[in-house]
Amino acid sequence: MKAAIFKQPGLVVCENIDKPTIQQPTDAIIRVVRACVCGSDLWFYRGISEMPSGSQVGHEGIGVVDQVGENVKNFKPGDFVIIPFGLSDGTCANCRAGRQTNCLHGDWYHTGQSEYSYVPLADGSLYKIPDGNYSDEQLASILTVSDVMGTGYHAAVMARVKPGDTVAVVGDGAVGLCGVIASKMLGAKRIILMSRHDDRQALGREFGATDVIPERGEAGEASVKDLTDEGVGVDAVLECVGSDASMQTAINIARPGATVGTVGIPHNVTIPFEKIFFGTVGIHGGPAPTRAYAPLLLDAVLKGDINPGRVFTYATTLDNINEAYQKNGSAPSN
Amino acid sequence: MKAAIFKQPGLVVCENIDKPTIQQPTDAIIRVVRACVCGSDLWFYRGISEMPSGSQVGHEGIGVVDQVGENVKNFKPGDFVIIPFGLSDGTCANCRAGRQTNCLHGDWYHTGQSEYSYVPLADGSLYKIPDGNYSDEQLASILTVSDVMGTGYHAAVMARVKPGDTVAVVGDGAVGLCGVIASKMLGAKRIILMSRHDDRQALGREFGATDVIPERGEAGEASVKDLTDEGVGVDAVLECVGSDASMQTAINIARPGATVGTVGIPHNVTIPFEKIFFGTVGIHGGPAPTRAYAPLLLDAVLKGDINPGRVFTYATTLDNINEAYQKNGSAPSN
Repeated sequence: MKAAIFKQPGLVVCENIDKPTIQQPTDAIIRVVRACVCGSDLWFYRGISEMPSGSQVGHEGIGVVDQVGENVKNFKPGDFVIIPFGLSDGTCANCRAGRQTNCLHGDWYHTGQSEYSYVPLADGSLYKIPDGNYSDEQLASILTVSDVMGTGYHAAVMARVKPGDTVAVVGDGAVGLCGVIASKMLGAKRIILMSRHDDRQALGREFGATDVIPERGEAGEASVKDLTDEGVGVDAVLECVGSDASMQTAINIARPGATVGTVGIPHNVTIPFEKIFFGTVGIHGGPAPTRAYAPLLLDAVLKGDINPGRVFTYATTLDNINEAYQKNGSAPSN
Repeated sequence: MKAAIFKQPGLVVCENIDKPTIQQPTDAIIRVVRACVCGSDLWFYRGISEMPSGSQVGHEGIGVVDQVGENVKNFKPGDFVIIPFGLSDGTCANCRAGRQTNCLHGDWYHTGQSEYSYVPLADGSLYKIPDGNYSDEQLASILTVSDVMGTGYHAAVMARVKPGDTVAVVGDGAVGLCGVIASKMLGAKRIILMSRHDDRQALGREFGATDVIPERGEAGEASVKDLTDEGVGVDAVLECVGSDASMQTAINIARPGATVGTVGIPHNVTIPFEKIFFGTVGIHGGPAPTRAYAPLLLDAVLKGDINPGRVFTYATTLDNINEAYQKNGSAPSN
């Protein structure tokens, strides 16, 4: 079968490898229907983070169950499912609390960009999609529930967005744009997107952003604060990048009492503790438990209330996987 | 009049200085009835933080209004009042949001250990105590509303303590002990106090601690986690010290999703961001807006529901102020 294999920075190839098989009684094999290249894949693609050459890659997808191990109770061949990027047993204390990405026996999914995918801990990880004839547009939006929409939603939840809030979203990649959708779902009144790309600004506005700030750094921070009551800052901040610059901006635009909900995989981020302490700014986030949010978000997608699949900028087949990495337009810019 | 003056580390003296006078129309002069030495006073007393020689000190108190400036509307001579350690105008965007220690025009109170105290921003800062004949015990508990009880309560609020939670309190000083009271007020089911002093352990249990862990560091962390569901850690942590060691312990015992509510004035604290990110641990705190909590906490004191004045370990007159610093038993031990 075909699968994406990381070779070296700048090179992911489609190779023929053996189709995966059931190894543990809790495993499932999934025929992948849609997978995608994530902004966080670009860290290793650009050589910024480590990835061993020869690794299978891809940590999100939707597909049809092909085989299940004998202990899998919740799924059967033929079921259409979402594969979240965090694999979880669904039964430990952390899973029961909705913290599936902190599962005591969990792992990170990493075989998504392939024809057939190996999924451990199937019962706790997968989420069933109702049978139906879905359009390409719907499939794209369903796919986002496996990662970017769930991650944007997590940012908003961790930032404690509540009805009436003024929210700022730092990062205009796919996650940041989904953070705009999430902020609107949670009742934010004003949503400020920091973005300097015309296409993302437009999509952000379509998703619910009421204001767009194109500047970065101090100028951008001042512009955001100018939009708030007496310039004190916003009620909640979604940090959707993971760089130190974006974190400092997020902290600087948060009003006292606000929390920065942070979901960008961190790269050399430093927290200025005295500043956040005396500024009463909170920090909370992490890898999104997208399995926890899947029921709510899939429902919103299927009702047509949200259309997060519009964040995808390019579609191709597995054979052209390297082009998908090259063209990945969803990397956040802030 | 008599006032406490910081001379050098290890030496605070009672000197005769001029009685303060109204400088601004928003000022008040208060005849101090009770003041106290705070755990945070010990930072400069021990030479760990800077304080200019000759400074007036004392940042909490209760007293009777002696004079008010012409623009003071809410208080008149004879009113019995609480003086919170954070002075605030009560009208800015941050004050209106209950963040008085982030007041846009605020300042830190620092003339409390004196016969008469100079209080700027009287209308926004002071809180009226109903007239009454209060016992020494009641006066002590009322006094804690100006700082330590409000600060312990803030730790619990920032940690998002909710009914049924298992909570850990790091630090058994006056604030930590008040954090136990606060956790109980907010409905915590299990309250684990980290303390290795017999007297504070006993008081902690009286205040509502269900468990006491005397060990520190890794051993202490393991003991706390052993008390939790599958060892995942506690639902909320109150960090009531401000040292790096106490912060690391607080982070290490927090379960995924938990927030460390931090109120100890930070001294060289480093936040291990990747650890809190991948562990889904939040950090939120700061100087407590005790003015915001004063109505609730004074009410609980006057009803006899809580008796936080028991945290005081020594009482004397202003003449013996240096002895009060020497004997201050409320410094947290963890």
